[in-house]
Amino acid sequence: MSRVLLTGASGFVGRATAVGLLAAGETVAGVGRNPAAMPAGVTPVIADMLGEPDAVVGFLREARPETLIHAAWSTEHGRYWSDPANLDWTARTLGLVRAFVEAGGRRIVTIGTCAEYDWTVLGGEPCREATTPLRPHTLYGAAKHAMALLVGAYCGTTGVAHAHARLFLLYGDGEQPARLVPSLARSLLAGQPARTTSGRQVRDFMDVRDAGAAIAAIARSDRTGAVNVATGTPVPVRAVAETIGELTGRSDLLEFGALPDRPDDPAYLVADVGILTGEVGFRPTISLRDGLRHAVAAWRSGPGAADHGH
Amino acid sequence: MSRVLLTGASGFVGRATAVGLLAAGETVAGVGRNPAAMPAGVTPVIADMLGEPDAVVGFLREARPETLIHAAWSTEHGRYWSDPANLDWTARTLGLVRAFVEAGGRRIVTIGTCAEYDWTVLGGEPCREATTPLRPHTLYGAAKHAMALLVGAYCGTTGVAHAHARLFLLYGDGEQPARLVPSLARSLLAGQPARTTSGRQVRDFMDVRDAGAAIAAIARSDRTGAVNVATGTPVPVRAVAETIGELTGRSDLLEFGALPDRPDDPAYLVADVGILTGEVGFRPTISLRDGLRHAVAAWRSGPGAADHGH
Repeated sequence: MSRVLLTGASGFVGRATAVGLLAAGETVAGVGRNPAAMPAGVTPVIADMLGEPDAVVGFLREARPETLIHAAWSTEHGRYWSDPANLDWTARTLGLVRAFVEAGGRRIVTIGTCAEYDWTVLGGEPCREATTPLRPHTLYGAAKHAMALLVGAYCGTTGVAHAHARLFLLYGDGEQPARLVPSLARSLLAGQPARTTSGRQVRDFMDVRDAGAAIAAIARSDRTGAVNVATGTPVPVRAVAETIGELTGRSDLLEFGALPDRPDDPAYLVADVGILTGEVGFRPTISLRDGLRHAVAAWRSGPGAADHGH
Repeated sequence: MSRVLLTGASGFVGRATAVGLLAAGETVAGVGRNPAAMPAGVTPVIADMLGEPDAVVGFLREARPETLIHAAWSTEHGRYWSDPANLDWTARTLGLVRAFVEAGGRRIVTIGTCAEYDWTVLGGEPCREATTPLRPHTLYGAAKHAMALLVGAYCGTTGVAHAHARLFLLYGDGEQPARLVPSLARSLLAGQPARTTSGRQVRDFMDVRDAGAAIAAIARSDRTGAVNVATGTPVPVRAVAETIGELTGRSDLLEFGALPDRPDDPAYLVADVGILTGEVGFRPTISLRDGLRHAVAAWRSGPGAADHGH
C-alpha cells in the first residue's frame, strides 16, 4: 500500500479512479470542494484547487504522499473546449506538481485527452501514443498537452516518474446530463424525440468505471509516458444510440441526421491500446452493452449525479 | 505608433527589443525589477513578474497596451535548462496573457527557442517552423513550447493575434559572462588559454541587436505563428572562436579539443529564415565579424553588462 493523493476526487473521472484505487488496497486522500461526493474510504482534503491551492500544499508537506493522480480540471460540457480556465488549471497544476515533488513525491499520473492528437491526420488509423502527431486544435487539448510536456520534462530533471493517461470517450456514473449518453437516455426515457447527427462517426467508448480502474492500474505500474485509456474497439455513434434505443424500448424516437454532422469532427477516433493492455496489463471488463444498460438504469431511477468534475 | 508592453525590458533580449521598438517609433512600457537597466525612452513598470505579478495586472488595466512582447524568463547560464523556475515562468505567463487579453490587448509576441525543435532528427537540415518536429528534450525547451501552444490556443479562442519568436544562438551586448562568446573573449583578452570543444558543431549566430530589431519587426507585422529569429547562416563554432582569436590577437591561446564534445549536442543547428525574411520582411544587418568585433570591444573596455535577463 502506498499513499495516493487524488485531485478531483469528487468528479466524474476522479470518483471512478478512487474506487479503482481503493479496490486495489491503496490509501487514498482526495482533494475536492465537495467531500460528500467522494467515495467512502477516501480521506478528504477539502480545497478549491483554483481558488485556494495552498491548502493542498500544506497537506503535501504533512502527509508526504508517494503518488499524485491529478484528475481535477474544468470540464463543463459545451464550454470546456475553449474555457479560459484551462490556462488557470495549467498554471495551478504546475504549482501542485512542484510542491508534490519538493515534498518527496515519487510518481505522478496526469490526465490527458484524445484531443491532444492531431485529429486532421487520422484517417482510419487508431491513435498511437508514440507515433500519432500531437497537434491539439482546441484550448483544452493544448492545455492538457502543454501540461504533459512540462510535467514530463520537470520529472525528467528530478527522477520522479510521470505517466500521462489520455482518455477517449467515457460515459457512465456521474456523467454530465448534456453529454451524449445521458442526453439520449434522458430523452428516450422521457418519451421525447432524440435528434442526433448521422451517427456515422466512429469512436472509442469506455465505461468510466473501467477508466478509473485503468488509471489506478497505471498509477500502480511503473510505466512512464503517455498511455491511451480506452477499449481499442471502434463503435459508430449510431450503434450507441441504437443500443440505448433498445434498452429503453424507444428506438422509434431516434432521429438520425436531424442534426448536421460537424465538419471539424473526425470520422474515426479510436485508440491503440497496446500500451495499456500490454505494458500496464489492464483490460476493460465492462462491455458497451452492459455499461449502457447500467447508465440507462441510473437515469431511469433518478437524475443521477450531475457533477461538473472531470 | 501603438502602445507596447515589453516584459524583461532590462534583460539581454528585452533591452535589444526595446531599442528596436523605439527606433521604429513605438511607445514602450517596460516591465522589470531594474528600471535603470532599461534603455532610455522606455517607461518603466517596476514589477517582479514571479514575486508580485499583480503590479503588471494593475498597469494593464490602466494603460491598456495593444501589444505585449513577453521577453521575461529565467535564463541563468548553466542552470536554466533544468531550472524548476521554468514552471513558475510558464504559470505566470498564462496569468499575464489572460490579463492582457481581458484588458483589451490585440497582439502578443512570445519568445521561444530553437530548443523546442527535436534536435535528434535534424541531420544537416535547417529547422523549419512548419515541418521540423517539435520535441523539446529539456525543461526549458518544454516550457517555452508549452507556453506557445497554450498562448496560441487561447488567442485562437479570443481573436487576439499571436506570434512566437524562436531564438537561436544570440551573442552581444549584455550577454552573461559565462556564455561562449564572452568567455572566449575574456580569456583571450586576459592572456589566458581558452579550452574549447572541437568546435565542429555548426550553429546559427546572431547579434542580439539584430534579434531585438527582428522581434520588434515581428511585433509590428501581422504575422502569426512561429517565426525563427536567426540569420540562416551556418557557422562552425570553431570559426567564431578563431575570429575572436584574430580580433584579440591571441589565436595562440585557443585549445580546440581540450574539452570533449557533448554527445547530446546536435552537430548542426541552423534556422530556416524564410518566414522572417519573406513574411516579416526583416533581414539582419550586422555581420558575424562586425558583431564579434563589437562584443570583444565591450569586454576589452570593462566587464560589460552581466545581466541575468533573457
